[in-house]
Amino acid sequence: MKLKVKILKFLTGRPVCMIHEKTAQEMSLHIDNRISVKKANKRTISIVNTISNIIKPNEIAVSNTVIQHLKLKKGDVVEVEITERPKSINLIKKKLKGEELNQKEIQEIVQDIAHNALREAEIAFFIAALNSKGMSLNETKNLIQAMVKTGKQLKLRGKVVDKHCIGGIAGNRTTPIIVPICAAAGLIMPKTSSRAITSAAGTADVIETIAKIDFSIKEIKKIIQKTNACFVWGGALGLAPVDDKIIKVERIVKIDSNAQLLASILSKKISVDSNYVLIDIPYGKSAKVSKRQAEKLKAKFLNLGKRFNLKLQVVLTDGREPIGNAIGPVLEIQDILKILKREGGPKDLEEKSIMLAGKLLEMAGKSKKSKGEILAKQILDSGKAFKKFEQIIKAQKGKIRKLKSGEYTHIIYAKSNKKIISYDNKLINNLARFAGCPQDKAAGVYLHKKANQEIKKSDKIMTIYATSKEKLEHAVKFYNKNKKEMVEYK
Amino acid sequence: MKLKVKILKFLTGRPVCMIHEKTAQEMSLHIDNRISVKKANKRTISIVNTISNIIKPNEIAVSNTVIQHLKLKKGDVVEVEITERPKSINLIKKKLKGEELNQKEIQEIVQDIAHNALREAEIAFFIAALNSKGMSLNETKNLIQAMVKTGKQLKLRGKVVDKHCIGGIAGNRTTPIIVPICAAAGLIMPKTSSRAITSAAGTADVIETIAKIDFSIKEIKKIIQKTNACFVWGGALGLAPVDDKIIKVERIVKIDSNAQLLASILSKKISVDSNYVLIDIPYGKSAKVSKRQAEKLKAKFLNLGKRFNLKLQVVLTDGREPIGNAIGPVLEIQDILKILKREGGPKDLEEKSIMLAGKLLEMAGKSKKSKGEILAKQILDSGKAFKKFEQIIKAQKGKIRKLKSGEYTHIIYAKSNKKIISYDNKLINNLARFAGCPQDKAAGVYLHKKANQEIKKSDKIMTIYATSKEKLEHAVKFYNKNKKEMVEYK
Repeated sequence: MKLKVKILKFLTGRPVCMIHEKTAQEMSLHIDNRISVKKANKRTISIVNTISNIIKPNEIAVSNTVIQHLKLKKGDVVEVEITERPKSINLIKKKLKGEELNQKEIQEIVQDIAHNALREAEIAFFIAALNSKGMSLNETKNLIQAMVKTGKQLKLRGKVVDKHCIGGIAGNRTTPIIVPICAAAGLIMPKTSSRAITSAAGTADVIETIAKIDFSIKEIKKIIQKTNACFVWGGALGLAPVDDKIIKVERIVKIDSNAQLLASILSKKISVDSNYVLIDIPYGKSAKVSKRQAEKLKAKFLNLGKRFNLKLQVVLTDGREPIGNAIGPVLEIQDILKILKREGGPKDLEEKSIMLAGKLLEMAGKSKKSKGEILAKQILDSGKAFKKFEQIIKAQKGKIRKLKSGEYTHIIYAKSNKKIISYDNKLINNLARFAGCPQDKAAGVYLHKKANQEIKKSDKIMTIYATSKEKLEHAVKFYNKNKKEMVEYK
Repeated sequence: MKLKVKILKFLTGRPVCMIHEKTAQEMSLHIDNRISVKKANKRTISIVNTISNIIKPNEIAVSNTVIQHLKLKKGDVVEVEITERPKSINLIKKKLKGEELNQKEIQEIVQDIAHNALREAEIAFFIAALNSKGMSLNETKNLIQAMVKTGKQLKLRGKVVDKHCIGGIAGNRTTPIIVPICAAAGLIMPKTSSRAITSAAGTADVIETIAKIDFSIKEIKKIIQKTNACFVWGGALGLAPVDDKIIKVERIVKIDSNAQLLASILSKKISVDSNYVLIDIPYGKSAKVSKRQAEKLKAKFLNLGKRFNLKLQVVLTDGREPIGNAIGPVLEIQDILKILKREGGPKDLEEKSIMLAGKLLEMAGKSKKSKGEILAKQILDSGKAFKKFEQIIKAQKGKIRKLKSGEYTHIIYAKSNKKIISYDNKLINNLARFAGCPQDKAAGVYLHKKANQEIKKSDKIMTIYATSKEKLEHAVKFYNKNKKEMVEYK
């Protein structure tokens, strides 16, 4: 049936169309049925709502995502058709029963997610199936392939390297140090990062304090041509977009599965054409995984790396406490600039960054085996890394400048002589969030002391930064309630 | 914040409100956040959509379910508040991990489903958790209790009996025969039934061919006062409504769990105040369960019956083929009337109905042990059951009358002398659905021969009835494609 577009500017969590009750009856459509909406060659699927005023029987109003996708304007005529119940629902059921899915079946599910043919509840069943039944490596490989195929891809020449941390550690902002080292060495490093989801800051939030991070694929190519690298937000690029849709539903209950974690990371890497991939898996009590889980995950990464012909290495790193002293976008970039300018900064963050950059240099043949760290440190010490960083920031329409941390502060002092054993990553992240992160870029937590350092009575342990008195009080309250679990002393 | 109600008559699959973009910003609300909408003492939760035309910043438009629930009219002022992420989401996550939930935790989940605080995707995760991790009987008991508590309840005096079949067998319409037998014997039988979901007809669809089935609780009480019994549609009564919400999501993937099946059945029985409950579990190749599964399920029913102080019995019955000859609302009621009027009708349906009615008469003390069937048959033979049936149908504003089956028919004849071993229930149901069931009440399938009957070449095996040529052709095509699996011969 042909319907005329009426523009009601509404935003919903999923693609929705509103049609007149009578039209719905005529087409035997019911609420929550799926229809395909077509204009010229473009087609998308949306969920049916009905309405009996405002809209006429020959009209249709669609939510903003549909308007954008089909580039609709008032009065446009679209072809509307009922779509059948997607077959992929039966495949999800199959997976819920614990059966293995083949390549075609996984492709069908992923394609239906890509085209909005599956609703949130259906995606939830898929996630729950992966969580309870797991996926074989073969299934995971097919999932990755399908995710890459349904998204955009960046095509690059040269030795393209990438590194990825599975997350879970507060601070740990190695990317802005590794990328300029590798780029200065002549490697291509198209780094896409996420914003904070449950943490206090993502790499995208940190870079955003001094540069733009939201570019199109075309713009990214230009930035890379100029500088060998970039630090951009991966969210709206359309690389493996099914991954983002799955994560959105997954976030509801905050569960994930190994298969989904592997697919999420590797689909993004393959989409940006990486040939050399380094995976960082921090383990520890408050990290995402234990040492044993880390080792299992490592084996899976290595296996999948082979299947995709990637040069892939995995390092297991110490995740018992945050890496670096700063947690929060502005606080973190300040420390990163200190390291890049060779003006000090946290030693553990510097060492970890050099170690990871060194590995990438070795993997891509820029240095001999076991000499990568030396080269990485040379590039850093020579100022070449800082220069490259400046160049990339400039290409991203940014500028290196002094930033102010939150003006409302609260300092925690040691009440006796002691030593720290570890910080709880989740609680430190939450503390920074209570102080305003990631929205308030100047908010956060600064750890003056780390594990194994001697602490004397009245030494500063940490400072909380906020941009309002209320948020600071909120954060201090959270600290007092959770301090025992947040910092473990011996 | 106070907002003025603007009436946009729209229907959505879940309670939705539309507020102006600016108002959303002001309240720090994002798409898909939950808000509570309050008018006087009534409160409901709905999902936020935003809109930037049609509605003013001080206005709100809500979907029809919210309008009805809060009895809103144009210009009413409602109090709108952001609600926190329901704690029950963490409990669902706990269950996904396989942990046991306590009474309070289950209550919290059920209450949040009742108040629409949980979205479909969240309910999907809950269902998936029950499906993959199961529930202990203690958890199931708490689930039932919470479901009953969050719904309406019917309070009745006297010996209240009920029977329930777990479903899966085509035909098998024993209810319209059992109810008048029990009611004629002086028992109270407030039978609520469902419409067809995946089958060709539900008891509600069958009774609807000759009477009304949609009544309020108050009206049902009156019908029962007059006749001892009723046959009504349970769908809109508000008895254990959380069960209906769960089933709606479950139906997406058509999975269920034992815990949910037990909770669904028993919560409805307890909500209508039944003290004597008989459960029929048909088992067999094309039934819902195998004999082994049926025995396990029986043990669970008996255990839960005790916990709720119910007199509960379970019978395992032969589910290898449909019960009765007719599948489809009109065809079924014709055969039921034959049995009630003692004018013939399918023997297997009659015998099963007498057996089940006999059990109920014994359980409720209307007959001595092992004499129930004799009493049931006497009531049937004496015409008292038919008289009671007429009385109930009249109280439900109906009338016993001749009904016409679908005018387009196709007869399947035997091509050789043989015997039937079994019919596949699912395929027979699907055949009737292809012919138009349950929407076309006159459509369906009539089985002229059942298992173990001698069949001679050219005997009629079955007749397909439809109300249009197209649907008949559709059904015949389906028969030809699936005949081998549909009927097993020896």
